[in-house]
Amino acid sequence: MIIVLKPNPDQKQLEALKKWLSDQNLTVHDSLGVNNTVLGLVGDTTAVDTEMLRAMSIVQDVQRVQEPYKCANRKMHQTDTVIDVGGVKIGGGSFQIMAGPCSIESEEQISEIAVAVKAAGASILRGGAFKPRTSPYAFQGLREKGLEMLIKASRQAGMPVVTEIMDISQLPYFEDVDVIQVGARNMQNFELLKELGRTDKPILLKRGFSATLTELLMSAEYIMAGGNEKVILCERGIRTFATDTRNTLDLSAIPLLRRMTHLPIIVDPSHGTGIRSLVKPMALASAIIGADGLMVEVHNHPEKAWCDGQQSITPETFADVAKCVRDVLPYRCREEIE
Amino acid sequence: MIIVLKPNPDQKQLEALKKWLSDQNLTVHDSLGVNNTVLGLVGDTTAVDTEMLRAMSIVQDVQRVQEPYKCANRKMHQTDTVIDVGGVKIGGGSFQIMAGPCSIESEEQISEIAVAVKAAGASILRGGAFKPRTSPYAFQGLREKGLEMLIKASRQAGMPVVTEIMDISQLPYFEDVDVIQVGARNMQNFELLKELGRTDKPILLKRGFSATLTELLMSAEYIMAGGNEKVILCERGIRTFATDTRNTLDLSAIPLLRRMTHLPIIVDPSHGTGIRSLVKPMALASAIIGADGLMVEVHNHPEKAWCDGQQSITPETFADVAKCVRDVLPYRCREEIE
Amino acid sequence: MIIVLKPNPDQKQLEALKKWLSDQNLTVHDSLGVNNTVLGLVGDTTAVDTEMLRAMSIVQDVQRVQEPYKCANRKMHQTDTVIDVGGVKIGGGSFQIMAGPCSIESEEQISEIAVAVKAAGASILRGGAFKPRTSPYAFQGLREKGLEMLIKASRQAGMPVVTEIMDISQLPYFEDVDVIQVGARNMQNFELLKELGRTDKPILLKRGFSATLTELLMSAEYIMAGGNEKVILCERGIRTFATDTRNTLDLSAIPLLRRMTHLPIIVDPSHGTGIRSLVKPMALASAIIGADGLMVEVHNHPEKAWCDGQQSITPETFADVAKCVRDVLPYRCREEIE
Amino acid sequence: MIIVLKPNPDQKQLEALKKWLSDQNLTVHDSLGVNNTVLGLVGDTTAVDTEMLRAMSIVQDVQRVQEPYKCANRKMHQTDTVIDVGGVKIGGGSFQIMAGPCSIESEEQISEIAVAVKAAGASILRGGAFKPRTSPYAFQGLREKGLEMLIKASRQAGMPVVTEIMDISQLPYFEDVDVIQVGARNMQNFELLKELGRTDKPILLKRGFSATLTELLMSAEYIMAGGNEKVILCERGIRTFATDTRNTLDLSAIPLLRRMTHLPIIVDPSHGTGIRSLVKPMALASAIIGADGLMVEVHNHPEKAWCDGQQSITPETFADVAKCVRDVLPYRCREEIE
Repeated sequence: MIIVLKPNPDQKQLEALKKWLSDQNLTVHDSLGVNNTVLGLVGDTTAVDTEMLRAMSIVQDVQRVQEPYKCANRKMHQTDTVIDVGGVKIGGGSFQIMAGPCSIESEEQISEIAVAVKAAGASILRGGAFKPRTSPYAFQGLREKGLEMLIKASRQAGMPVVTEIMDISQLPYFEDVDVIQVGARNMQNFELLKELGRTDKPILLKRGFSATLTELLMSAEYIMAGGNEKVILCERGIRTFATDTRNTLDLSAIPLLRRMTHLPIIVDPSHGTGIRSLVKPMALASAIIGADGLMVEVHNHPEKAWCDGQQSITPETFADVAKCVRDVLPYRCREEIE
Repeated sequence: MIIVLKPNPDQKQLEALKKWLSDQNLTVHDSLGVNNTVLGLVGDTTAVDTEMLRAMSIVQDVQRVQEPYKCANRKMHQTDTVIDVGGVKIGGGSFQIMAGPCSIESEEQISEIAVAVKAAGASILRGGAFKPRTSPYAFQGLREKGLEMLIKASRQAGMPVVTEIMDISQLPYFEDVDVIQVGARNMQNFELLKELGRTDKPILLKRGFSATLTELLMSAEYIMAGGNEKVILCERGIRTFATDTRNTLDLSAIPLLRRMTHLPIIVDPSHGTGIRSLVKPMALASAIIGADGLMVEVHNHPEKAWCDGQQSITPETFADVAKCVRDVLPYRCREEIE
Repeated sequence: MIIVLKPNPDQKQLEALKKWLSDQNLTVHDSLGVNNTVLGLVGDTTAVDTEMLRAMSIVQDVQRVQEPYKCANRKMHQTDTVIDVGGVKIGGGSFQIMAGPCSIESEEQISEIAVAVKAAGASILRGGAFKPRTSPYAFQGLREKGLEMLIKASRQAGMPVVTEIMDISQLPYFEDVDVIQVGARNMQNFELLKELGRTDKPILLKRGFSATLTELLMSAEYIMAGGNEKVILCERGIRTFATDTRNTLDLSAIPLLRRMTHLPIIVDPSHGTGIRSLVKPMALASAIIGADGLMVEVHNHPEKAWCDGQQSITPETFADVAKCVRDVLPYRCREEIE
Repeated sequence: MIIVLKPNPDQKQLEALKKWLSDQNLTVHDSLGVNNTVLGLVGDTTAVDTEMLRAMSIVQDVQRVQEPYKCANRKMHQTDTVIDVGGVKIGGGSFQIMAGPCSIESEEQISEIAVAVKAAGASILRGGAFKPRTSPYAFQGLREKGLEMLIKASRQAGMPVVTEIMDISQLPYFEDVDVIQVGARNMQNFELLKELGRTDKPILLKRGFSATLTELLMSAEYIMAGGNEKVILCERGIRTFATDTRNTLDLSAIPLLRRMTHLPIIVDPSHGTGIRSLVKPMALASAIIGADGLMVEVHNHPEKAWCDGQQSITPETFADVAKCVRDVLPYRCREEIE
């Protein structure tokens, strides 16, 4: 960490600052220039509050040199983390597709889709039981009943499931769930993240609408600091002025995250664009750019879907997407990133 | 609601659509143009899922004419809602200032600040006990103990308190809290909102980093639909490319929200800018533009604050801000907005 | 175009509006609902000013059904436009790579790079002579002299060139330039666009930092309406809150633009990310997603580049990028988009 | 300027870097920490290309301590710049209102509005002759003829004028124009800025849709470096995800700019919001927050305006706005900003 002081700092305040830094087990190197003094801190600065430093009247600016995340940091864990989900390996060179409906609507619906997406190449079944909806008047999901239907369908089809949790109080219902999803709106629901850090379930953590990559990794750090290192990151689009798509899918995040962290990274092209016809091109781009997998919304009758039908594709289209993705996998850009 | 159909829609699908709309108790008026047919829907469309309509292959676009929120809608409730917080009235022409530290750090700290801000003109004491921090390694607040200190200090100073809740499970500790704050990161924590809708406490709901005004009102609607109509809205800055300030405080939201809703609206210039010297100018602008109040971070020793010191002002500066705000109140822009 | 009227519109104003619309050769269909009247306009609404309509006190909202661009519209020109640049075909299924330095620095530099990028697979040489720089104190390009060096190098290497114009007054120097580039900062320099519409040179039009796709096409329309239909669009990243990269490359724009327009679309992964190591992954993603080509910054000594060295790659790296791109071309997602 | 090196930098490259920095007349102070070496540069770094430094393989990060602008810098010119426009003083504590129509439409229209806005308190007449319009099919302004009408009306009314230039080639027509406006779309039309730097006319420079404050000041620097120090800055809204308003007016820019620069700063609440009813509240907020003036669109028949009618107010409403603004001027927040 580097602290740039204002010109001619008060010497008493400067001594107080240096003493406080030493008390944090940090070694301070100072470089006296003509205008500004620069303090270089050596040691573990992860817990140093840059805000507090910036608040001091003698400080002009503070800049981190070390990343503020540790468990998630690629530097601390050179090789890719591989997460085993009921025999399905995520990360480390494999490519897994999670597919299924936005909402679970009935036993028939989820069973039919499960069989179809498995046949087409999906390895994990997705489906929403607890649904975060902007409007309190919109369908909120079948909740516990939906979870039961999802698990039954997945066991019949022989594939693990991923589904979203919205609150700590729902955790007891997730005992048979294989991967617990934290949605974009809950990426900084820190109490939920801490609680999930105490479980041993794989967690799929979606990037918030306006989260930087460092913030995403800090949220992963909340889970990992609690002891649960099984975190899968998911890019699902950010909010920008560009409203031709529902969100702007930030594909450069994939190679950047691979450099920053050892955790697996998947892409959700359905929510990331909100437009059915963009799912295939964005899925291909995600595969080629080096993602570890995809999450895709598939519905047997998109026009009758209880939510997000506009971005759902049919099992037939999904089979085509999955095939084309498989075709490009040998050309994936997975080499070492400087 | 208006549905624009694609040219030459399939007649069978069109009949199915019309029937489905009638089943929702909506009357359909259609206007046949040369290229596009337009369906106009009459009735309560609040619960109609525009996504589902957009997913239909015969539909080109869907546009709401009615707002999707009801309880929060100014049209349904012409006069300003006034919320009584222990005798302090928020909304309807008054102007209230909530002030206090980002974090409660000790009994002495919060008591000293409480007395100081009250003397300077604050009517409600703020202070964080449960703290949402980006890093799991940063100070997370004194939690239950902090709440006790806050309430004790407020009772001694004779003013009500507002403080943030982060999870449903913390609700039992909030029994003596006067106003429960929902932070920007939890604006779409829908399970928490529903639970707060079952209480009878005033709720201060902060706008999310990337929330539109309609989304903010839909979150208020979650609380109100549960029966709790005491919602105070808070503009606290949005995330944009403009990084000279921590967030971009969107002051046009104040007159726009006053037109859209009858709920009181306050501004947080401390978080909204993240810069101490901007608190006063943005506070004055918020007052003149018609806000119902302010939330300001005040710390007796900003340079030693355990969080967000960079944006905290001293009690002396706060006294000056409060005085200048009072001076401009007679000139507030509160007239009817078309 | 659809005009939604406010409830109970003044009848005299409504008649005046209808008459005015008829005078514009538009047929008006009205649909009377219970709350709102909706007017549907049939005819060419390209020149109708939606702002003027929205300003009327009886109008609640105006929505275009037809796109406001004509010459650039895919509906008016179903097949892909193919632009011939000195024998190099851009659009219609081919894939062309434009490569070269950010700035032309000397005859040796540009000649050496020209030979290298041609050998590696580039078909068009790029290089900046007139340089838009944020600071007046930064290197502004070799200007006319740079253009001469560029053209000499390109003729020796046997490949056409693309280079940026910054002002109408520079046009005389561009006589031997094969493709004239309009930079992001000039995307809405309408006088320049009109002037370029009077030339018969191919124009490479870069998307502005904060331009929507419709605005990009309206700028293309400025050139095309003047008679020059040879416009190549270029996605080069938009400005968002996400500052891990210099810009956020919006790859979903490629399939969306292909649906909206018949013009060729290329991607600039160098400016789009500003980070050298992201050029290859973003180049591969651009190819697979259906772009018509790439524009890449290549410098023989990136560390000594006079500008944008951080995003320039060496000829050796470029050769690898070009080879990997060729490998994935058979898998491009170019099928018909609904 | 501070250069943070990567751990264990190549010593030969480091020596080369230090030599190059010395050759730029910069003194280098280095501080050797355990992990990273930090170089502190002393001297005039305005012309140092941070991009070139970042491109070096031994460099991890570069951070400016000095601002990259000189002429516009408050540090170089402590007192407010005051610009005299035909006797009207802009900056330094006065408050001036520029008002008039978006487009000049006829002699009658502009004359009538000129008289009305002057009577209501405007000191400078605005009116567009050369109009930047998104669509080539929209009205492009009366151009030279419009300028003549504008100047005639202003002379009759006895007030100076401000009007927009779109291209260098139009400069000869601006001889009798008092203030030349550079629109948001041309904020980085550097050739135009340089040319305006060679004139001695006051220039009103609008902030680009996605420009940072430093970029705005660098554009002012282009004009000032050419010798013309008469630059007036104008905040007119930035582009964000928040689409309830056409742009998001960034009022925190006013106090921030006052700290960064000595140039006068005005606000355009008409373009900044795009909504008529927001002009008054945003005008009042702009005045109270310390702006040096306003630019407001006024039209005698907003519903018949040839452009931007939705944001134009009538002369009657303008008179009310101007009066309310005058009332709050004594309470302006103009004190010294730390």
